[in-house]
Amino acid sequence: MPDLLDVIARRASRYAFAADPLPDDVLETLFEAARWAPSYGNRQPWRFVVARAPHVLAAVQATLTRGNQYARRAPVLVAMAADPNDGQIREGREYYLLDCGMALENLLLQAVALGVQAHPLGGFDEDGVRAALAIPAQVRVLALIALGYPADPATLDEDTRERDARPRRRKPPEEVRAFDTWAWRESPD
Amino acid sequence: MPDLLDVIARRASRYAFAADPLPDDVLETLFEAARWAPSYGNRQPWRFVVARAPHVLAAVQATLTRGNQYARRAPVLVAMAADPNDGQIREGREYYLLDCGMALENLLLQAVALGVQAHPLGGFDEDGVRAALAIPAQVRVLALIALGYPADPATLDEDTRERDARPRRRKPPEEVRAFDTWAWRESPD
Repeated sequence: MPDLLDVIARRASRYAFAADPLPDDVLETLFEAARWAPSYGNRQPWRFVVARAPHVLAAVQATLTRGNQYARRAPVLVAMAADPNDGQIREGREYYLLDCGMALENLLLQAVALGVQAHPLGGFDEDGVRAALAIPAQVRVLALIALGYPADPATLDEDTRERDARPRRRKPPEEVRAFDTWAWRESPD
Repeated sequence: MPDLLDVIARRASRYAFAADPLPDDVLETLFEAARWAPSYGNRQPWRFVVARAPHVLAAVQATLTRGNQYARRAPVLVAMAADPNDGQIREGREYYLLDCGMALENLLLQAVALGVQAHPLGGFDEDGVRAALAIPAQVRVLALIALGYPADPATLDEDTRERDARPRRRKPPEEVRAFDTWAWRESPD
């Protein structure tokens, strides 16, 4: 059995992108992975719009917030979008978001498996992305995914290089899983 | 490189659970996979509460809707829960749900890698799950995950066996990914 946990542990949101384009078959494999995610009632609410034509890519790049300018170097930006009405809503829980998270994680892990760098981000002007990609008003843009091949972090400006080099941190297991009752150890920090 | 796409393609929500308990190290590996999911601003809103003590498990089983009675056979039911305020909210997009989807997908794929059967479901009485596991009122219960080892589908009642045997279907790629503009082929069905 392949060591999936190693793929999961190696997945990280890195900042340095090479200019090289992504071959079509690589892109299609990423969407193939996303497509097989589960969803509530098999509603499959996720939609992915690839921005890669130069004028379209530029229009999407223009929507990035100040903290996400690194994503301008990526040769492809993918908008993950969904119509909330395409997903199940149960007791106020809007499952289109959860379903899209599952599809996104498949895509991100598949990227690791293919040596592709994928960095999902939420800092963009949503109306701007809608305008750039002709996305209807009722559809929510949930993430942009910067996609490309990795580059040397030395090519980054100092601030971004520092962010890129930060070790990945997670809460310890005792703070995210419990047995038979809601009881958590407090974090020491 | 391991064939991740094969793991993704083999993941399925199956219905027949064996009574055998899950070893602790298997459970912990599932949560380890979930723990390393990405989240908006690294907020890690996911919490997992394992129901396995007999009286607790029975109380959670009692919350299952009619269509989810198969999950009574699972030796473990895990509640995935989150406080919406623990996640980022941006322009009304509630990222705790998307983040929890990513963590859940990691768990589901890791289950495939370990030969564990995992079936996430949304059909439960949320207040009932909160009461059974002492989950605070502001925390949303997003899914129950039935966990166990697979059993022979012949042990299922006829209706459930039919559901179990249904082939997995997904929209074709042309309906979920597009290039440079929001444009989709209509489904023939």
